[in-house]
Amino acid sequence: MSIENPFYSPEAQGPYEMHSIGRFDLEEGGVIPDLRLAVATRGKLNADKSNAILIPTWFSGTHQTWDQIYIGEGHALDPEKYFIIVVNQIGNGLSTSPHNTHDPSITMSKFPKVRISDDVRAQEQLLREVFDIEKLALVVGGSMGAQQTWEWAVRFPDKVLRAAPLAGTAQNTPHDFLFTQTLLDAITSDPGFAGGDYATHLQVQAGLARHADIWAVMGLSTEFWKSGFWKDIPMLNGETTDDFTTFQAGFIRALFQLMDPNALLAMGWKWQRGDVARNTGGDLAEALGRITAKTLVMPIDHDMFFPVADCAADQQLTPGSELRVLPSIAGHLGLFGFEPTYVEQVDRNLAELLAAPI
Amino acid sequence: MSIENPFYSPEAQGPYEMHSIGRFDLEEGGVIPDLRLAVATRGKLNADKSNAILIPTWFSGTHQTWDQIYIGEGHALDPEKYFIIVVNQIGNGLSTSPHNTHDPSITMSKFPKVRISDDVRAQEQLLREVFDIEKLALVVGGSMGAQQTWEWAVRFPDKVLRAAPLAGTAQNTPHDFLFTQTLLDAITSDPGFAGGDYATHLQVQAGLARHADIWAVMGLSTEFWKSGFWKDIPMLNGETTDDFTTFQAGFIRALFQLMDPNALLAMGWKWQRGDVARNTGGDLAEALGRITAKTLVMPIDHDMFFPVADCAADQQLTPGSELRVLPSIAGHLGLFGFEPTYVEQVDRNLAELLAAPI
Repeated sequence: MSIENPFYSPEAQGPYEMHSIGRFDLEEGGVIPDLRLAVATRGKLNADKSNAILIPTWFSGTHQTWDQIYIGEGHALDPEKYFIIVVNQIGNGLSTSPHNTHDPSITMSKFPKVRISDDVRAQEQLLREVFDIEKLALVVGGSMGAQQTWEWAVRFPDKVLRAAPLAGTAQNTPHDFLFTQTLLDAITSDPGFAGGDYATHLQVQAGLARHADIWAVMGLSTEFWKSGFWKDIPMLNGETTDDFTTFQAGFIRALFQLMDPNALLAMGWKWQRGDVARNTGGDLAEALGRITAKTLVMPIDHDMFFPVADCAADQQLTPGSELRVLPSIAGHLGLFGFEPTYVEQVDRNLAELLAAPI
Repeated sequence: MSIENPFYSPEAQGPYEMHSIGRFDLEEGGVIPDLRLAVATRGKLNADKSNAILIPTWFSGTHQTWDQIYIGEGHALDPEKYFIIVVNQIGNGLSTSPHNTHDPSITMSKFPKVRISDDVRAQEQLLREVFDIEKLALVVGGSMGAQQTWEWAVRFPDKVLRAAPLAGTAQNTPHDFLFTQTLLDAITSDPGFAGGDYATHLQVQAGLARHADIWAVMGLSTEFWKSGFWKDIPMLNGETTDDFTTFQAGFIRALFQLMDPNALLAMGWKWQRGDVARNTGGDLAEALGRITAKTLVMPIDHDMFFPVADCAADQQLTPGSELRVLPSIAGHLGLFGFEPTYVEQVDRNLAELLAAPI
């Protein structure tokens, strides 16, 4: 029933544990009969359970980038001090996803629609039932992880003491919706996609390539490409190149072509509809007004689809929040931490936020 | 041999004349055996031939938008004062193009590669042979028209007294190249495209739709979509809408779906490779240093693919030039003159430029 894909394995992604939270009813009406969340924990929960940090993942991402870039000694997210729980989002290829479920009722094209709010509810249940955690010292996430962070802060204000949405909005914009749609259509228009019932992601390589090519435009920036910044970034084969189309093929295409098309589609549908105002009948100001967490909103200066202006608009509606623009020539994909200056600034902001009394 | 497409007709595009300039050898090695240029002239050439203004066209565009938005009484481009020559670029569907040529050697998929510099050479020949014009009071164009304007100013400095590239660079950037490639791949990946030898553009409607959808993201701006600015813009059926996906379908998709796929591909290939430094062995500063025209460089503030920074970089290398950033919430497609404030600013700049002594 499920499809083997080595990209979604502990060998490729680093260690994680699977936790089942049982039958999960989704807001759109579907059901995941046995929702399994892939969870990576780092550090130890302290006695009064005051040092828990939750990190939800972004589109196409897993816990791995957080492990490699943001978590560790010397970083604000230090496992010596904090119990850090990275929860892979539903449908990301590690948690229950179209290609990895053994349940015939939700496999592949039958996978139900999942919302940001479903992820957040599932995470809240996981933390409560599995880890016995009722308060979070911090929720921090980038991109779709920021969408989940916003949703956490609005939906569970009593549980979120601090929040740090990086490069993501509380309410998705029409522009971002249309952008995401081009990403999804690039996949579904590939005849090999076969309506979602392909035998292997290798049949959808052309669609995944076009998907990646759009990322190379909207995910980065003209400065990234023009400056030649990419010449120092190793491609997936470990080599560097002086030719920008070779870099695009060897890095961005090569990466997305490892992934499962239905996983990307499940996440993309969710991304398009991230909206905390669903908690308040469409009133964004009222929704953001519910936030009690101390919040640092951190857009990236060159981001083309979660641009500073859109993130700043959310921040201005959020009590007790502050805007901290992060510098990255890599635009939205600056989240991958290509630049030490970017990572340092994130660390400084998060350290300050974690040190702030509540 | 040729394909009928009512979009490319005087009825749809407004009046123009066809001028043959005979056999035309292209820089990439191909040949157009009988190059026919679609030319719209407005106003009259004065006795000393000092009032000629040339306007090259942009991607997917024709002389029509210039007629409707920029040319006329009360505008800087006033036919009472100037002899205005709008030359439709090669391959745009009106001038010799893949779908309209009767020559079997260059029809459809056999159409040769054309460069910006080919257009400029053809226009120079047209002006000399057909209109007996040796000096241009002004060359002005937007987007690919700006690319041609830059090429004119570098290649024929003695003939161009003033230049006004709007929303376009002298040397295309890698980011813009990659963006354009996504537009082209959206078309060629449609099975109906049939390698360029479709029977009618109606077979390529899915590809043209995906092409349009990418335009809706990169061609406009998040502010355009978020503000609801589009709610006042009539769709092709003359109606307005409150739903942004309906607007996208009824305006942007509907427009591109009228067009010929091979025409878009011929223009797109050309656009990707616009580069005045081909005149100087790759030295951009040397190429732009050749410019003697008084030049106003006018990027649009919200442009996502010919952004201000990239245009400003060219401007800084251009002697006697000045940067004038134009305001438009519509981003690159602000060129369509949705906002009176934008059009007024273009008019002010062009009037000042035309009044400047040479």
